[in-house]
Amino acid sequence: MARRPIVTLTTDFGLTDHFVGVMKGVILGINPEALIVDLCHQVSSYDIFDAAFTLGQSYGYFPPETIHMVVVDPGVGSARRPILARAAKHVFVAPDNGVLSLVFEREEGVEVRHITSEHYFLNPISKTFHGRDVFAPVAGWLSKGVAPEKFGDPVTDYAKFTSPKPKRVDERLVKGVTLKVDKFGNIITNITPEDVPQIFTENPPPFKIIINQHEISRLNASYSMGKPSEVFAILGSSGFLEICANRGSAAKALNVGRGVEVGVMLGESG
Amino acid sequence: MARRPIVTLTTDFGLTDHFVGVMKGVILGINPEALIVDLCHQVSSYDIFDAAFTLGQSYGYFPPETIHMVVVDPGVGSARRPILARAAKHVFVAPDNGVLSLVFEREEGVEVRHITSEHYFLNPISKTFHGRDVFAPVAGWLSKGVAPEKFGDPVTDYAKFTSPKPKRVDERLVKGVTLKVDKFGNIITNITPEDVPQIFTENPPPFKIIINQHEISRLNASYSMGKPSEVFAILGSSGFLEICANRGSAAKALNVGRGVEVGVMLGESG
Amino acid sequence: MARRPIVTLTTDFGLTDHFVGVMKGVILGINPEALIVDLCHQVSSYDIFDAAFTLGQSYGYFPPETIHMVVVDPGVGSARRPILARAAKHVFVAPDNGVLSLVFEREEGVEVRHITSEHYFLNPISKTFHGRDVFAPVAGWLSKGVAPEKFGDPVTDYAKFTSPKPKRVDERLVKGVTLKVDKFGNIITNITPEDVPQIFTENPPPFKIIINQHEISRLNASYSMGKPSEVFAILGSSGFLEICANRGSAAKALNVGRGVEVGVMLGESG
Repeated sequence: MARRPIVTLTTDFGLTDHFVGVMKGVILGINPEALIVDLCHQVSSYDIFDAAFTLGQSYGYFPPETIHMVVVDPGVGSARRPILARAAKHVFVAPDNGVLSLVFEREEGVEVRHITSEHYFLNPISKTFHGRDVFAPVAGWLSKGVAPEKFGDPVTDYAKFTSPKPKRVDERLVKGVTLKVDKFGNIITNITPEDVPQIFTENPPPFKIIINQHEISRLNASYSMGKPSEVFAILGSSGFLEICANRGSAAKALNVGRGVEVGVMLGESG
Repeated sequence: MARRPIVTLTTDFGLTDHFVGVMKGVILGINPEALIVDLCHQVSSYDIFDAAFTLGQSYGYFPPETIHMVVVDPGVGSARRPILARAAKHVFVAPDNGVLSLVFEREEGVEVRHITSEHYFLNPISKTFHGRDVFAPVAGWLSKGVAPEKFGDPVTDYAKFTSPKPKRVDERLVKGVTLKVDKFGNIITNITPEDVPQIFTENPPPFKIIINQHEISRLNASYSMGKPSEVFAILGSSGFLEICANRGSAAKALNVGRGVEVGVMLGESG
Repeated sequence: MARRPIVTLTTDFGLTDHFVGVMKGVILGINPEALIVDLCHQVSSYDIFDAAFTLGQSYGYFPPETIHMVVVDPGVGSARRPILARAAKHVFVAPDNGVLSLVFEREEGVEVRHITSEHYFLNPISKTFHGRDVFAPVAGWLSKGVAPEKFGDPVTDYAKFTSPKPKRVDERLVKGVTLKVDKFGNIITNITPEDVPQIFTENPPPFKIIINQHEISRLNASYSMGKPSEVFAILGSSGFLEICANRGSAAKALNVGRGVEVGVMLGESG
């Protein structure tokens, strides 16, 4: 009657090893009805922010009751706790290292539990692959209908970072930062239309976007409106200002990666 | 009663971002029974021919009624139309930019519709990610059984390129072009046994394949018949003449990529 | 009634071509109920040992009756046979080239058959893509419930290599070899706690691990116990001694790949 339970996987395991396949085997061994979806396995290695951002851009597009398992886990085998987080529509399983920060930032009333019920884990438990030995079994049993409270007690002191917000320097200048470069070389910033509504209007005032000593003064509605080799701005699909090029890599053209300052300056230059 | 509907995905989105995972979330949110299969997500960026070729080598191996969604879409957000194409056995959803050209070339009586029924799309629709906002929802609803005619009216002026055909220069010489280099470094040409039947016979006459100033004079039945570091020809699995090496990359050995001229010259050289 | 049959795929086909997608189409065309799981498609090209090792680390985590299809097949199109192997809990389909060696090493009473029933194959059969034309159809029909004996007669002369075992040189020295470098740059050796139990105790005696002229004298319980840029040893998740670093690549730091000698020397150095 109920639809098949969905389990998404987000990791930094890459696809050159057996890691992802084995986790699927473990989940399916527990619940052959689980529908496993790869969200992304190429999160930057050990990069908790990148994992949080990847998940944050994605989980809302999955149907209610989806179980999201995130294993970017540089502290595997240490004292860092495995946690389970229940939000209004989704359930999350992850190490307690901040990878769920954007979920905590956006969702209200999230209930977080420290996963301690070891009888759900594989036995023996390795010290290096909790994706297989802890998180996959927990996701499998959750997908079978085991209630979150069976896995451990609530905690409130879970790890959480605040995502970097743009700063208004003065009336004309807002400063943000680049969050990610995507596969096409588009540079995603943390600046949204709320931060500088003027440049997203139909007839924007003159403005400059300053990044790595380059100045960009055009915001196009679509990639294809860019001229050959022009670097311009766009409103990206996750709601952030992006710096991009038409059929080319803005990241290469500007030599910009993640964590680089971006300024938006309103008004005539000079 | 009916089997689960299959939706295949072919994109240039790569696997380093959340793009592919999110599209699956959208499809499953509409139809949790959909069986989603990744055909390929590493089509060359913005490369409509490569998308068409990847799809062309593949769709016929899927069962009837499979829905094939292709999102290689450099014109996303522009006036280019989203289309739906109904062939005898398969349904295709794609931007109207030529990615379905090989389907149009091979299938008879394909009915093409301009997708205009926006109530099937996600809302709001971004200008940069129609894979998520337009094509995935349409594929999802198609897989739920919504009839093609519900999505829009037929059109006949859809984009379509003609795939490059080998040319007979004279009785002895046929000239073709390389279409792709595969993961192993095999060079796939557009030349088929119909173009030069002689060299595919059991006792072929002397011949030379000329490519980037190299000459190849052997056609083997299998990769493993090649001697170490020998570059030779083979009849590839998609029916095209391939240039290859035994456990090595012919593309590297000859320094040849896509779009390079290939000549097949019959008879003694000189 | 029975759960959906699982088919895992292990290949060196990579993800840049249509190869993997097409094999899934073939399997689903035969059995739309099959649940296909990618184990790994980035086995090193033509590398039979790497395929065997990838499979060996993984198959035991899948539920009973899983069908494992392995296509690392440099001899495709030659006289090498396709085989089907029935172990106590799992079924394997592969070329007869040694890729199942670790299964043969670990499982008792494996029944191996030469697959000869060509009416199960695609027709025509290419000489270059038996993953699509032979192995996928056989896996598909197996998953439909066709009995192994329908595919061909038992054979006993199948290809099989012995995995490299560490050698005890003297009371203080054991010599092994590196088997693989994983995505994170961890170097997996063939040395297990059985070979040098002393160093895996809670209070190990002094020891040195010697690899490419580097000496390592610490074994940590988890990656995160390593100091910045320290290279150390760990017991990896597949039960082998690994050389690793905390959030860094040991393989790069030591300039070590696969097939490199590793010595474990007990006692004070000098």
